[in-house]
Amino acid sequence: MIIVLKPGSTQSDIDYVSEKLHEKGLKVHVSKGEERTIIGAIGDERILREASLAAYPAVEKILPILKPFKLASRDFQRENSRVQIGDLTIGDDEVRIMAGPCSVETREGLLQVARAVKAAGGTFLRGGAFKPRSSPYAFQGLGEEGLKYLAEAREETGLYVITELMDPRDTELVYRYADIIQIGARNMSNFTLLKEVGRVDKPVLLKRGLSATVKELLMSAEYILHEGNRKVILCERGVRTFETETRNTLDLSAVPLVKDMSHLPIVVDPSHGVGRSDLVSPMCLAAVAAGADGLLIEIHENPEEALCDGPQSLRLSEFAELMVRVKSLIEALGRKL
Amino acid sequence: MIIVLKPGSTQSDIDYVSEKLHEKGLKVHVSKGEERTIIGAIGDERILREASLAAYPAVEKILPILKPFKLASRDFQRENSRVQIGDLTIGDDEVRIMAGPCSVETREGLLQVARAVKAAGGTFLRGGAFKPRSSPYAFQGLGEEGLKYLAEAREETGLYVITELMDPRDTELVYRYADIIQIGARNMSNFTLLKEVGRVDKPVLLKRGLSATVKELLMSAEYILHEGNRKVILCERGVRTFETETRNTLDLSAVPLVKDMSHLPIVVDPSHGVGRSDLVSPMCLAAVAAGADGLLIEIHENPEEALCDGPQSLRLSEFAELMVRVKSLIEALGRKL
Amino acid sequence: MIIVLKPGSTQSDIDYVSEKLHEKGLKVHVSKGEERTIIGAIGDERILREASLAAYPAVEKILPILKPFKLASRDFQRENSRVQIGDLTIGDDEVRIMAGPCSVETREGLLQVARAVKAAGGTFLRGGAFKPRSSPYAFQGLGEEGLKYLAEAREETGLYVITELMDPRDTELVYRYADIIQIGARNMSNFTLLKEVGRVDKPVLLKRGLSATVKELLMSAEYILHEGNRKVILCERGVRTFETETRNTLDLSAVPLVKDMSHLPIVVDPSHGVGRSDLVSPMCLAAVAAGADGLLIEIHENPEEALCDGPQSLRLSEFAELMVRVKSLIEALGRKL
Amino acid sequence: MIIVLKPGSTQSDIDYVSEKLHEKGLKVHVSKGEERTIIGAIGDERILREASLAAYPAVEKILPILKPFKLASRDFQRENSRVQIGDLTIGDDEVRIMAGPCSVETREGLLQVARAVKAAGGTFLRGGAFKPRSSPYAFQGLGEEGLKYLAEAREETGLYVITELMDPRDTELVYRYADIIQIGARNMSNFTLLKEVGRVDKPVLLKRGLSATVKELLMSAEYILHEGNRKVILCERGVRTFETETRNTLDLSAVPLVKDMSHLPIVVDPSHGVGRSDLVSPMCLAAVAAGADGLLIEIHENPEEALCDGPQSLRLSEFAELMVRVKSLIEALGRKL
Repeated sequence: MIIVLKPGSTQSDIDYVSEKLHEKGLKVHVSKGEERTIIGAIGDERILREASLAAYPAVEKILPILKPFKLASRDFQRENSRVQIGDLTIGDDEVRIMAGPCSVETREGLLQVARAVKAAGGTFLRGGAFKPRSSPYAFQGLGEEGLKYLAEAREETGLYVITELMDPRDTELVYRYADIIQIGARNMSNFTLLKEVGRVDKPVLLKRGLSATVKELLMSAEYILHEGNRKVILCERGVRTFETETRNTLDLSAVPLVKDMSHLPIVVDPSHGVGRSDLVSPMCLAAVAAGADGLLIEIHENPEEALCDGPQSLRLSEFAELMVRVKSLIEALGRKL
Repeated sequence: MIIVLKPGSTQSDIDYVSEKLHEKGLKVHVSKGEERTIIGAIGDERILREASLAAYPAVEKILPILKPFKLASRDFQRENSRVQIGDLTIGDDEVRIMAGPCSVETREGLLQVARAVKAAGGTFLRGGAFKPRSSPYAFQGLGEEGLKYLAEAREETGLYVITELMDPRDTELVYRYADIIQIGARNMSNFTLLKEVGRVDKPVLLKRGLSATVKELLMSAEYILHEGNRKVILCERGVRTFETETRNTLDLSAVPLVKDMSHLPIVVDPSHGVGRSDLVSPMCLAAVAAGADGLLIEIHENPEEALCDGPQSLRLSEFAELMVRVKSLIEALGRKL
Repeated sequence: MIIVLKPGSTQSDIDYVSEKLHEKGLKVHVSKGEERTIIGAIGDERILREASLAAYPAVEKILPILKPFKLASRDFQRENSRVQIGDLTIGDDEVRIMAGPCSVETREGLLQVARAVKAAGGTFLRGGAFKPRSSPYAFQGLGEEGLKYLAEAREETGLYVITELMDPRDTELVYRYADIIQIGARNMSNFTLLKEVGRVDKPVLLKRGLSATVKELLMSAEYILHEGNRKVILCERGVRTFETETRNTLDLSAVPLVKDMSHLPIVVDPSHGVGRSDLVSPMCLAAVAAGADGLLIEIHENPEEALCDGPQSLRLSEFAELMVRVKSLIEALGRKL
Repeated sequence: MIIVLKPGSTQSDIDYVSEKLHEKGLKVHVSKGEERTIIGAIGDERILREASLAAYPAVEKILPILKPFKLASRDFQRENSRVQIGDLTIGDDEVRIMAGPCSVETREGLLQVARAVKAAGGTFLRGGAFKPRSSPYAFQGLGEEGLKYLAEAREETGLYVITELMDPRDTELVYRYADIIQIGARNMSNFTLLKEVGRVDKPVLLKRGLSATVKELLMSAEYILHEGNRKVILCERGVRTFETETRNTLDLSAVPLVKDMSHLPIVVDPSHGVGRSDLVSPMCLAAVAAGADGLLIEIHENPEEALCDGPQSLRLSEFAELMVRVKSLIEALGRKL
């Protein structure tokens, strides 16, 4: 960590800061330039983040050298993490297709969708039983009934189930039905919930928050890892910008960036990223080309009647067509479905 | 609600959409322009948000006419809401000062701060016992012990206590100690938590999310109001932008904007808004001039030693000086402390 | 255009607005709902944008129905625009590769780069002779000398030249040397410059501004088209967000979005989009998969010595490797180089 | 400047970087921590920005210590700059009121507005003769005719004139009529134009770009200062965010931030900041309380008929009322009009 002092700082300022660093067990190196004095603190600077040294009047700024997360870091683990779900791995050569409706609405609709996912080569069925909705007047999900329909669809098709957990008090319930527990974008910084899923032994798919940097996404992953659960899958789903034609701005550079900074796998959700079904297919292709470990796609048997996110849901026929193109792209890139 | 059809739409497209609107009990008006056909839906369009009409291929866009929230709206209640806490009101002529440390750390420190708040004319003591921290390695708060210190400080000084709730399972506990329950920015869209505090009878201070529009803030308030709790106080605390010199960008225009759109009171937290103690005082003055119903200010008896947010905390002497200036400003504006 | 009146508006408010619309030659339709009265204006609403009807106190909001641009719109021209440069077209099945240094620095370096571009299958040489630099102390480009080097490289390799125009007074000079005139992101709203290049008969590559929506990009294109120059190529190069690990956030959804809204071709500049050479290659692949008509890539014979944008420039060997992968991707997508 | 090397860097990497620094005349200090090696470069690091050292594969990141601007910096000049215009100063105790229409439209209208500005205690008349408009179909300003009306209004009222320059070829023309030359937000990074006004001897009001950081605003000011013109006044006018209820998000924290980083005066333009006349007055008060050196306010004799920015223009009566409140606030703050 580098501490830059303001111009005009005195020896006593230098001594004060140095002493504080020594107290924390760090080695100190002072370097006086023409315009600024800088103090280098050598050792594990994460201890120092606790200290509020920046509040000291003579301190101009503090420049961290190390990343603020450990377990999620590529420094900590060089090789890619591979998350095992039944007989499948995420984080390997394969690109995993996870598709389904925004929310589970009817038993028949869900089964119809599940069969379409299976037929097209998908391996995961997504669908929310608990839905975070910005309006209290909107459909909030079927709850356990929805989870049961998911389980039934898994039974029939062999697809694995991914579904969202919103309330820490539902952890056990969702755990019982899900193969991957999803933490939604709005809950990326719900540290209570992160700790909760850090204590279970099922994979967690952690979505990037609407205005979270990749570093913050990795800090949230660190919460889960730190509690003991090492099965974390990240998900890029668009960030909030000034652009209003799309629901969010899908940041595909997050894919190679995460691969550089971390060993964790990352999938992409273009449906939430763009929020318009006509843009979903090109962005699915782009996500695969960018190196994503999987795609999370919203599809619906009848988008005009969907209780949630109809405008961004692909029809089953559109999904089938997309999958043909996805497959040929995956092959061209030397990867597998 | 206005439904704009794509160029080239047919009569059967118009009929399809009209029928869907009729089914929902809405009156329909079709208007054919030279370049576009538009369909007006007259009635309570909030019903329609449930429908995914925008997924219909012939629909170009949907323009809502009404606001998506009701109870929080100025249309619903013309006069300002006044929230009563003991003998104080928020939302009236007075500007309420809420000050204290980011997190409750020691009993002695907290008492020292509380006395300074009281002496300077403040009426609320803020301080977190449960802290949402972006790093799992950072201090997470004292828990119930912190709440007890707050209660003791209230006992001694007569200040009211405002403190954050993070976990729905702690609602009863926090309820017991707090006079105002704070929902932090990171939890503005934690609908589970919003519903929880919607069912208690204590005032709730709801902070604007890092990338939430004012409309979304009001939608979150609607969750609380809809559950039955009408004592909601909003809080502007800065939004995330590309600017890196400040922690966030404090959006003071949210104050008159909220007053236009809603009847709910709004306070401002310049400490989180700027994240640098040297900018806090001018922004406190600006917030009052913009019409805020109160200020939420982080102060600390020794910011260099703070376990949380030291760099943005005012020293007790700085706070005392600021309060002198705040008072004279409040008077000049014809308001009261 | 839909004009929404505030609750409590009177008949005289309705009459006032209606009269203003009639004056402009628009047909008027009034519709009274339970909560709001709305007034529909039928006709060419672009005339109305001139009027400041929204300033009338009884007006709550104005909802445009039509797009604010004409010539750039897909409504105006259904089929894709194809921009011809010599024997090449942009906007067709081919994906055009435009590569070169950020700024032209030395004759030898440029020639070396040009040969590498040619060898790898590229068809355009990029390079700035006039450079917009955020610091006045940074290298500002070689000026006409740089243009001469570009012309020499074209002579030798047969590559076409794309280079930036910054000053309207340099239009004739740049025109003489360039095959495509580039308008940089910082000048997307420099309307003086847009009008200038609207009057020449060479293709213009217009980069999206740092915080411009796609609609605004198309409005800027409209300036050029409106002056008579129909050879406009758009360029996505990343927008500014809160993310700090990348220089900008590359918005690849702009590619299919532009294709939906407009008939103009669009290329992608991943180098500026991410600002880090290690992320450029995956984003090139993703851009092609998203449907881009070309790639604009910064490469340098010795990035460590580059006077501009070294950290985001690919080495010549990295570029050659990338091109192999790009080619196989293009084939898999059924397109051509 | 601190250069952080990647983990696993070798002695030859350290030597390479050190040599490059030595070549530039910088002193070098190497410090090996447990996880990272860092290299400190002591001397004027602005030289180094030219070098693209970050492109070297072993370099993880580069942390600048010094600010990238000199002449605009508070380090360079401790005391506030005071810009003299006739008998007035900007940057002193006084708060200067600059008001007028967005664009000069008619002689009579402008004179009426000028008299209202004068009567209310304003000292500057604003008004555009050349207007940057996002649509080519919108009113583009009266050109020299508008400048003549401004001069006539100055003649009659004694107000000083502030007006925008868009085209470097109009510099002499605008210079002849203006007392302050305005560079609009869209031209903040039009370096051609900045150099041009850097060579004249009249004050320049430089507006912050839509997505410019305060540091970048100061870099643009540096361009003007570096050419020799030291009479620079900065202007905060809102930045672009995701909020859609306001035109921009007015960043009032920029006022104390500029005062900390620079010696230059800063005024605030709340009209463009919020884009809605009903929010302008509270934001004017807030801007003064935040410490602004002046206000730039759009007013119009008949906003409904304005050819530009009607919805954000105050009526003359609203402006007069606002000025009464501004005056009493200025007094309470111990400043002067």
